[in-house]
Amino acid sequence: MCSLKKALLFCKSCGAEYDACEARFRCDCGEPLDLKYDGAGIDTSSRVQSKRFAAFFPFAEDDWVSLGEGGTPLVSVERFAKELGLSGVQFKNESANPTWSFKDRGTAACIAHARALGYTKVGTVSSGNMAASVAAYAAAAGMEAFILVKGNVADEKLAPIAIYGAHLLRVAGPYDELYKESLRLGAERGIYYMNSDVPFRAAGSRTIAFEIAEERGFDVPDWVIVPTSAGGNIRGIINGFEDLLRAGLIAKLPRFICAQAKNNSPIVTAFENGWTQIRRAPDAETIAHAIDNPFPPSGNRVVAELRRLNGTAVSVPEGEIVRAQADMAHAGLFAQPASCVPLGALRAARASGIVKEGESAVLVTTGGGLKYTTAFAAHKLEWRDCAIGDLAELLK
Amino acid sequence: MCSLKKALLFCKSCGAEYDACEARFRCDCGEPLDLKYDGAGIDTSSRVQSKRFAAFFPFAEDDWVSLGEGGTPLVSVERFAKELGLSGVQFKNESANPTWSFKDRGTAACIAHARALGYTKVGTVSSGNMAASVAAYAAAAGMEAFILVKGNVADEKLAPIAIYGAHLLRVAGPYDELYKESLRLGAERGIYYMNSDVPFRAAGSRTIAFEIAEERGFDVPDWVIVPTSAGGNIRGIINGFEDLLRAGLIAKLPRFICAQAKNNSPIVTAFENGWTQIRRAPDAETIAHAIDNPFPPSGNRVVAELRRLNGTAVSVPEGEIVRAQADMAHAGLFAQPASCVPLGALRAARASGIVKEGESAVLVTTGGGLKYTTAFAAHKLEWRDCAIGDLAELLK
Repeated sequence: MCSLKKALLFCKSCGAEYDACEARFRCDCGEPLDLKYDGAGIDTSSRVQSKRFAAFFPFAEDDWVSLGEGGTPLVSVERFAKELGLSGVQFKNESANPTWSFKDRGTAACIAHARALGYTKVGTVSSGNMAASVAAYAAAAGMEAFILVKGNVADEKLAPIAIYGAHLLRVAGPYDELYKESLRLGAERGIYYMNSDVPFRAAGSRTIAFEIAEERGFDVPDWVIVPTSAGGNIRGIINGFEDLLRAGLIAKLPRFICAQAKNNSPIVTAFENGWTQIRRAPDAETIAHAIDNPFPPSGNRVVAELRRLNGTAVSVPEGEIVRAQADMAHAGLFAQPASCVPLGALRAARASGIVKEGESAVLVTTGGGLKYTTAFAAHKLEWRDCAIGDLAELLK
Repeated sequence: MCSLKKALLFCKSCGAEYDACEARFRCDCGEPLDLKYDGAGIDTSSRVQSKRFAAFFPFAEDDWVSLGEGGTPLVSVERFAKELGLSGVQFKNESANPTWSFKDRGTAACIAHARALGYTKVGTVSSGNMAASVAAYAAAAGMEAFILVKGNVADEKLAPIAIYGAHLLRVAGPYDELYKESLRLGAERGIYYMNSDVPFRAAGSRTIAFEIAEERGFDVPDWVIVPTSAGGNIRGIINGFEDLLRAGLIAKLPRFICAQAKNNSPIVTAFENGWTQIRRAPDAETIAHAIDNPFPPSGNRVVAELRRLNGTAVSVPEGEIVRAQADMAHAGLFAQPASCVPLGALRAARASGIVKEGESAVLVTTGGGLKYTTAFAAHKLEWRDCAIGDLAELLK
């Protein structure tokens, strides 16, 4: 029944290994799992993840359902390099994906895994990017989708998910309980719950690393900065660079910065305090809605990865997030607030001396600005009403 | 002062030619101008328009300012091919551009032209995709931008333009008068007005054709269907295929369908009535807001091109546009209503027998669904509120 090539899911925390043909989303020890698969090689004839990087995944060609995910731009912004005394500041603009966020990479990989295992139903727990992404790919794959969102999500946030035709449930109750209950019920009911940090979602995020390296001619930057919520994306990006190192395609790893909003930064807190276990953060509001996660399921793992690889974790106050969003838009990159946290983190890390003069940084811009229009209110946006006859005066 | 390689702007209507170093946006005869430039060749090392297709443009490398435009996915949807008895239906998803519409291609080309000619100020007349695109690229280029929008544009449509930091004027008065006045004042004040169908905007749209051809291994589809407002995009796409034919990269041209909303379809009306000159359409409302143009400045030219190349023009009623939007979303492609008009046009052209069984079609999906959230109201979108304890029952 399982069409996968031989691959394992392994736990970096306790060392356990499982066959990837098992529908397994976490290790028995409670920690997240990563894909262990020997393939490598880039098919440069296509820009789409499922073709270009197919060799890094254990799927048969038929398992993939693609909407054209991946192949996003890496954009250099000289004014930030100049401001910070760096040799380069680049943004990996993941809003140029089919549903306008990085989630499409992991979703495509999870859908392929679900199909390989014979599933016909999928789901996720999300109130934003991931929900839209899973609904879209399930639609493309002709699979039934059951999307669960938090009870406090506003009606207007639901329409961009519902438009894809998924079953959509707004569920009252704590988010992390919802995460666990969805995996439990999914196992019982034959629904593949591709939540935030499941193994193949992280495996999909590896292609962000592959593309960053490729676009830079395999010259890795000094720093890669990732806005972090559950922790699946930064885990995947780290794994991606490690895959490239193993394949001999790059000579060293970059250092990683986990960037969080100060109002909700459990990973930063654990990292700074030397804890191995994250503790639930007070669930304060942040404009960086997409990374608003007080108890991230990959939190312990991310803290361990950062220590292992000499990375760091930086939190960014609300005002600096808003400033970063304005500054990025004024450079032509309109990103959702969560995706502007890396610029705030880079500024803080440069000010504190962690990032040194002349170094280079790649910032992962996880999603587009139209995803969270509530943020417009934080900016002083201006326009003026006039008549055609006034233009001669106004365009002086 | 002009850094351009030798290139001409020529008028397909009267045959006049002008040096491309002239800041000229229309022919003296009143018709639009096209780029005439001998370069050809594809640099497959980059997916970005300004590198991959640089040889097709007369710019120096330094003239380009890129946010990573182009390299968008071509997505096959089998269920539509099956529904219509076609050998293939593909969507060129232009929402995977930096500002989530096809406009970025033309904007990048116009910005390069403006820089080559020494301009430091740019502008456009638009209420949507083009305004955001020009504001973003002007920001990236460090140029001052003067964006003019129609007087009836709602406040909430202005924030996604204003966020980029451009001067934004909401101008009362007729749209086509605003178009002309902007070009006149722009010439006087040194502002490069990159309106809808200016030569380098159409020249940028050629790369849509290049990518469609490339992704299909230079096997052209039978039909290419383009939602049409001013007419600059379909002109550019036609020119792109003609460039490929001239360069020997393709063996024949596809046939083109100009797709408009029935409520505002001056090009279709002129085409069907055998007119050479379009007449102003009654400016009725359409959900296809982005192509709502009662008197398109490239209308005459588009009609002539369709006749010359054995193409056709098809209009789509409101209900069919809404149905197409739902059907595309249920296939994973959430596009703005204007970008769903091609599917409605394909269905109509298939029903009328113009498009024949077994033929293939590529539909240009010009912009993403988040661009026009007003359209959600046209759909019966559903979700359900519940508690975590209810899930066991609801996920059966």
